[in-house]
Amino acid sequence: MFDFKQYMKNQQRRINEKLTTLLSKNRQNSRLLSAMHYSLMAGGKRIRPILCISAASAVNINHVDVLPVACAIECIHTYSLIHDDLPAMDNDDLRRGNPTCHKAFDEATAILAGDALLTLAFEILSDKALSYLPHLQLEIIRILAHAAGPYGMIEGQMRDIASETRQLKENELEQLHNLKTGALITASVNAGAILAKATEDQQEQLNAYAQSIGLAFQVIDDVLNVKGDPKRLGKAVGTDTDLQKNTYPGLIGLDQAEERARKLVQQAVESVRYFDNQAEPLRAIANYIVRRDH
Amino acid sequence: MFDFKQYMKNQQRRINEKLTTLLSKNRQNSRLLSAMHYSLMAGGKRIRPILCISAASAVNINHVDVLPVACAIECIHTYSLIHDDLPAMDNDDLRRGNPTCHKAFDEATAILAGDALLTLAFEILSDKALSYLPHLQLEIIRILAHAAGPYGMIEGQMRDIASETRQLKENELEQLHNLKTGALITASVNAGAILAKATEDQQEQLNAYAQSIGLAFQVIDDVLNVKGDPKRLGKAVGTDTDLQKNTYPGLIGLDQAEERARKLVQQAVESVRYFDNQAEPLRAIANYIVRRDH
Repeated sequence: MFDFKQYMKNQQRRINEKLTTLLSKNRQNSRLLSAMHYSLMAGGKRIRPILCISAASAVNINHVDVLPVACAIECIHTYSLIHDDLPAMDNDDLRRGNPTCHKAFDEATAILAGDALLTLAFEILSDKALSYLPHLQLEIIRILAHAAGPYGMIEGQMRDIASETRQLKENELEQLHNLKTGALITASVNAGAILAKATEDQQEQLNAYAQSIGLAFQVIDDVLNVKGDPKRLGKAVGTDTDLQKNTYPGLIGLDQAEERARKLVQQAVESVRYFDNQAEPLRAIANYIVRRDH
Repeated sequence: MFDFKQYMKNQQRRINEKLTTLLSKNRQNSRLLSAMHYSLMAGGKRIRPILCISAASAVNINHVDVLPVACAIECIHTYSLIHDDLPAMDNDDLRRGNPTCHKAFDEATAILAGDALLTLAFEILSDKALSYLPHLQLEIIRILAHAAGPYGMIEGQMRDIASETRQLKENELEQLHNLKTGALITASVNAGAILAKATEDQQEQLNAYAQSIGLAFQVIDDVLNVKGDPKRLGKAVGTDTDLQKNTYPGLIGLDQAEERARKLVQQAVESVRYFDNQAEPLRAIANYIVRRDH
């Protein structure tokens, strides 16, 4: 029987250890590095890097070591959180129960720490010491840059801010989420699959899996912002309503939103039905996404 | 006789055309792309991309096409200007005679446009269509990510902000400038040299050239902030003094600063003495740096 909790704990430990090594490689008495470290080590669940690792394992039992790529993905994710929290954006004071980066340091430091984590991600991804084939390493960089860039995550964040003053249609909201959250989640899964040399069929199935859980993840995020426990979440709830954000509960109601997320998770699990028990982590992560309370 | 003005004009036109193509590849009615385009096309002198192109030509007369790499470098440079201008950083209203990005759009858009240009740079650099050898393409990404990241340009900007309240020693100021301006200028030259398959000797000589002009460039920037013409510069002067910034004129006096820049340019020209007349653009750029009035 697959022990999901233990699996997550093990992977989180591996990721945290590797991130610590990557950040302290060039030890300096630097306020910038302190701010990067502060946000990177603020207790994130490491969903994206674990998806990357789990996708690779699902394809290939003789694991290729995707840990550096997984950590680069977490750097990109953390940078996006730091910038999203800024006063000019969502203006959040708390993240995972702690002061946000610009509250713990200051705004200039937070902007630069975000910039630095994004740039560091590409330094990690282009490391000469990685043992991937050069053309695969380039492909991973291309996939992640595209997903995180102006045709992916950043465009999603831009639309999220721009839509605060008007009501979106459901397909517009879905598109926004696909850009803002889905693109990087999908890229995380695809990066793992590609490095593990997945067949085209496997890549398609894993891509479908990722798209479903990406959207489910955001729907549940919206749901938790309505009915979650601020203590478990480590941040305030009800903020979406205050900011007049477009959300699934706001658009189709709370019950419908939860139902939607459950169906998406079913689809995700269905997408990886041809994989053997090496894909158990992927199935468990999908189920966890609707079950989670933070 | 080498016509420097014409050379710069030709290169600027090539770079601007390529940047336009790169940005309109995915045409969307997007506020984000408009803001990126606004800052990217605000009339920059394109010094860094031209250095990349000129370094490649100095090594190899049968030019390898480094234009995409040169444009990625300009994206990185432009992102750094957008973020440096933000209210939380240098709080500048004007850049090249026009409203800064956050003034023309808003702060959130400017932060995201900067993020997007940085990410787009790595998408351009990892493009499958580029004809470089994969391991060289990876090396360029590594060099630029390192120069632009937390051990290069961003650390320089962090120190620049942190040092506004205290007087630096000359070697501290030099280190700050080497990080903030020198690292990306050096990386631009090195990227061109590597793609043109420079020998180790040539790489060393070009690297020395780049380090000298990188520092000269910043010294003259400081000088122009004291005695430049705001109309030619397209931005206010005297702002360094107002912000109590550490500058070369402030530290060693205006005349000494200009003398310092002249000596650095001499060193730079000396560094490329073994190159033939294909290195004329590099020599002319070095001389232009001390002669420029904007």
